Amino acid sequence: MARVTPSAIMELIKTTAGGDYISFASGLPDPALYPAETLAAIADEVLRTDGRMALQYGPAEGYAPLRALVAEILRQRGIGDATPDRVLITHGSQQALDLAARAFLDPGDPVLIETPSYLAAIQAFDSYEATYLPVPLDDAGIDVAQAERRVREVRPKLIFTLPNFQNPTGITQTLERRQRLATLAATHAIPIVEDDAYYDLRYEGEPLPPIAALARHPLAIYTGTFSKTIAPGPRVGFLYAQPPVVERLAQLKQITDLHSSSLAQRIVVRYCERGLLVPQIERLRAAYRARRDALLTALAAHGRDLATWTRPAGGMFVWLTLRSDADAAALLPRALAKGVVYVPGASFHPGGGPANTLRLNFVSADEAAIERGVPLLAEALAGGEG
Amino acid sequence: MARVTPSAIMELIKTTAGGDYISFASGLPDPALYPAETLAAIADEVLRTDGRMALQYGPAEGYAPLRALVAEILRQRGIGDATPDRVLITHGSQQALDLAARAFLDPGDPVLIETPSYLAAIQAFDSYEATYLPVPLDDAGIDVAQAERRVREVRPKLIFTLPNFQNPTGITQTLERRQRLATLAATHAIPIVEDDAYYDLRYEGEPLPPIAALARHPLAIYTGTFSKTIAPGPRVGFLYAQPPVVERLAQLKQITDLHSSSLAQRIVVRYCERGLLVPQIERLRAAYRARRDALLTALAAHGRDLATWTRPAGGMFVWLTLRSDADAAALLPRALAKGVVYVPGASFHPGGGPANTLRLNFVSADEAAIERGVPLLAEALAGGEG
Repeated sequence: MARVTPSAIMELIKTTAGGDYISFASGLPDPALYPAETLAAIADEVLRTDGRMALQYGPAEGYAPLRALVAEILRQRGIGDATPDRVLITHGSQQALDLAARAFLDPGDPVLIETPSYLAAIQAFDSYEATYLPVPLDDAGIDVAQAERRVREVRPKLIFTLPNFQNPTGITQTLERRQRLATLAATHAIPIVEDDAYYDLRYEGEPLPPIAALARHPLAIYTGTFSKTIAPGPRVGFLYAQPPVVERLAQLKQITDLHSSSLAQRIVVRYCERGLLVPQIERLRAAYRARRDALLTALAAHGRDLATWTRPAGGMFVWLTLRSDADAAALLPRALAKGVVYVPGASFHPGGGPANTLRLNFVSADEAAIERGVPLLAEALAGGEG
Repeated sequence: MARVTPSAIMELIKTTAGGDYISFASGLPDPALYPAETLAAIADEVLRTDGRMALQYGPAEGYAPLRALVAEILRQRGIGDATPDRVLITHGSQQALDLAARAFLDPGDPVLIETPSYLAAIQAFDSYEATYLPVPLDDAGIDVAQAERRVREVRPKLIFTLPNFQNPTGITQTLERRQRLATLAATHAIPIVEDDAYYDLRYEGEPLPPIAALARHPLAIYTGTFSKTIAPGPRVGFLYAQPPVVERLAQLKQITDLHSSSLAQRIVVRYCERGLLVPQIERLRAAYRARRDALLTALAAHGRDLATWTRPAGGMFVWLTLRSDADAAALLPRALAKGVVYVPGASFHPGGGPANTLRLNFVSADEAAIERGVPLLAEALAGGEG
C-alpha cells in the first residue's frame, strides 16, 4: 500500500474547484453537455416501469441487455467476434483496468507501457507493485520497434496502451503500429489491455480498428465507457475479452463490489434504445471540435516561441513540450496567479518523467474561455514578469 | 487468481431465477418493498435541479453531504467521534470489505474469522490469498475466549466479524463479547473489520453499540450500507475509520473505480433529507418481523424432529443444523424437485465446513409463501420419499 500516492490531478481539481480559474487541468468533460433533462425522464421511466429490478441486486457480469448492446457497439468498432459473453460491465473503465491488473499482475511483474500514459492506470499498476518497461510515444503512437526489442529482452506480464487520442498526449496510434503491437502481444501470448475511453470523440478522419480486432489473441482486453459520451456520474464502463477471461474478471468484480448499479445500467440501455447515443455523440463532437480548434489557433497565436504541441484528431487533451530546461511544475504557481491551471507532465510517467511537458484539457472550458486563457497561460510559461 | 471460485449463492440464484421456486436461498431483500415510486420522483428531481454535478465525476471519498449524513447516522449508532472525515462512501459495503482486505492483507496473512461467516467476505479474503484462524460462533456470537487464545498463538493481520443478525446464522453478538473483542483488537493493534449491513433490520430488543464504539483503536473499521434499507441497486455503502485509514482507503478506492456514482449518492441524500429513511426502516421491520415469525412458527410445526435452528432478533437469515450425518448439499436436489431452494452451509466456512447446516432467507418470500414452503422443505430434509 505504501507505493500508492494521491492523484496529482485530483488534488489539483480540489484546490482549484472553488476558485474562478480557467481550467486546462481538468480530466473532466463539460457537464453543460450532459443530457441531464433526458436522463431525468429516463431514470423516472426506468424506476416506474422496472423499479424492482432496477433497485435489486444483479449479476456480476452486468445487465444482459446492456451486455448485448455493448457487444453490438464493439462489432461496429470492428471487433467481429464481440458477443454478450465477451462483455463485462464495469464501474467505469477505471474498474476494467484495475480488474485486469489484479488478475494478471503479481508484485514485481513488468508492465510494458507507452510513456507518458494515463495517470490512474499507472497508479493502479503501482498499487500491485508492478515494475515498468517504458516505451516512448511519437506522433504515430508507441514506438513499436522499441517495444519489440524490449519484449525480446524482458517478457512483460502485461502490455498497456491507449490507441485513440491518448490521455495525456492526444496522440493516435497508426494502423501499422496497431497491427504490429497486436501481433507482438499475440505471438508472445502477453496479455494486452487497450484503453479506448475516447473512441467516440473523433473530430476528423476515419476510425481505426481496435488492436483487439487485429490478431487472434486469447488475452486481448479492450476497455471502453459511457462516461465520455452520456456522462461519467452513473459510472458505466465495459470491457471486451474472450469468455474465459470475462468469467475470471467477473468473479473478481463480484468480490470487489458484487455488481455495477442495476439502475445506471438500465438508464444507459434505455438511452441507447431510444436512439439518443448517436446524436449525443454528434453534439459532443461538434462542440469539442470547435474547442480543440480554438485551443490550437490560440496556441499558434501565443505559444509559438514557447512550446511545441500535439494536434489531436479527437479526445480531450493537447500535450505541450516546453524548452528542455523548463519546469512545468515550477511554473504552475505562476499560472495559478494568472487564473489558469494545467497539469505538469512528469506525473504521467511511471516513477516521474521530464519536467518540461504539460497537459491541457480543451473540452471543459468553452471557446471564449480558451481564447481568454491561452494568452494568460503563455504569459505564465514565458516567465519573467511573474 | 486461481483460488477464486464462483459464488455458490450467485450460481444458485441464476439457476432458480427463471423457475417457479419458493426461494429461501436468496441473499436478497424483497424488491416489492423498495420505494421505487419515491425514488423515481427523487431521481427526476436530482437530475433536473443538480444534473450537472449528479452526472459529473466526483471525489473518491464521496459526496460531502452524504459523508456528513452517514457521520450523523453513525453517531446515532453510538460511534461518538464519527465525523465526515471518518467516513468513506463505497460501492456497496462489499467494496468496503474488499478495500480493507486490499489495504491490510498480503498473501499468506492470517485472518481471524468467526465461522460460519459471510461468503463474499471469505471470497474477498481468498482472493488476497489469506489464511484463516477460524473461531466458532455460539448463540452469543464469536467465542471470544477462543479468539483470545488464538491471538496469543498467532497474531492475525485482520479480525473480521458481523455483530448484528450475522449472515448466515442470524446470531447477534452480546455486549460483553463485543467489549472483549474490541479490547482484544485494540490491545494487540490488530485491524478489525466489523460488517454491520443489517443494523437497521432489528425486530426486537434494543440496539447494541458497534464494536468500533467500545475501544479507542486507530485500526477499527466499521462498514454499513443503504442496500438493506433503501435498495441495493444504486450500490451505496460506507465505512467508518480514523482519518488516516479513510485517506488510504480513498486512494485505493480511486485506483479501483475513481468514485461511487454521483447520481446514486445524491439520490440517497435527498431521500434521507426528506425524512423518508426512518419510516422506510419501520415499514421493513414490520414486514420482515412478520416473515421471521412465520418462518419460526412453521419450523416449529414441521421441523422439530429434523433440525435445530437459530432465532434471530433481526436481519434476513435463520440457520438450520440437521442431524450430524445429514448432508444439506446432497439434499438440495430433492428440495429443488419440491420447488424450494436453500443454501447449504458448508460454503460459509473458509475452505468448507460441516455438511449438516443450511441457511434460510426469510425476507424474500412473503408469509404465505413461507407457510407453503416450510412443509415442502421439511419433506425434502426428511428424505425417504424424494
